[in-house]
Amino acid sequence: MRFLTPLAASAALVAASGLVLAHGKHGHGKAIDYRTSVMTVFTWNLRPMGAMAKGKTPYDKALFARHARDLNAAAHLDLLPGFPDGSDEGDTEARPDIWLDWDGFTEKYAALKQATEALAAAAGGDLTSSVKDKLGKVGDACKSCHRAYRER
Amino acid sequence: MRFLTPLAASAALVAASGLVLAHGKHGHGKAIDYRTSVMTVFTWNLRPMGAMAKGKTPYDKALFARHARDLNAAAHLDLLPGFPDGSDEGDTEARPDIWLDWDGFTEKYAALKQATEALAAAAGGDLTSSVKDKLGKVGDACKSCHRAYRER
Repeated sequence: MRFLTPLAASAALVAASGLVLAHGKHGHGKAIDYRTSVMTVFTWNLRPMGAMAKGKTPYDKALFARHARDLNAAAHLDLLPGFPDGSDEGDTEARPDIWLDWDGFTEKYAALKQATEALAAAAGGDLTSSVKDKLGKVGDACKSCHRAYRER
Repeated sequence: MRFLTPLAASAALVAASGLVLAHGKHGHGKAIDYRTSVMTVFTWNLRPMGAMAKGKTPYDKALFARHARDLNAAAHLDLLPGFPDGSDEGDTEARPDIWLDWDGFTEKYAALKQATEALAAAAGGDLTSSVKDKLGKVGDACKSCHRAYRER
């Protein structure tokens, strides 16, 4: 095998230590893992609904309804304890603005819950423009919060 | 700075590439991320209930009930699509036994849902031996499945 140049070796070490740090136990590592996990559940459910709404995959009403239900259930998990004070430090894209504007943050989160509730209530029948609109409003709620409170 | 010896450099590269692979896009990376995330939500809720039941933290009935409710909601997310065929490959502790014994696996998962339902229904009042027993049964359901289907 070829040995590394010193520069490549340094880069590899930096990369390795960065990844280890990213998964290490910061003070708020568990809270960050939790909130990240909840958002992974959001994405898992949102993506296939989006693909169906855009006609990229065939519409399956039961599958759509299941994802709408699970997305709504996940949005109603108590996420705010996943954002303890100071948890803008660590492996996170959360911006300090969350804590500087906590009311705004919780309002946007409440808007997401309302949007997922409306989608879950509407899902299960045909893929009408009303259902697509409600899915769009969920996406808007995600984006609105990310734009304000997530690192870009 | 000191440069790395070739051996240290190789070790660093192997470590870095392993970590990158672990988080890279295997065929089933998204399913693995999803099921891991759901279990992170389980742990987030289970741990504080366990600490209260053992007297390690003061009993807070509203907090306990909230965790019991969220644990039950998370257990009722549709987790099985997070275990597609072949997803014992990749960054996972899932054993092939899951797919060799799918009925057994789904039975154990159904038992978890029953246990979280019973706990959620019982939570919200005093921390009685009955509530502790129901929490214990949730833990037993976790362990039973991990023993059979998770790498040790």
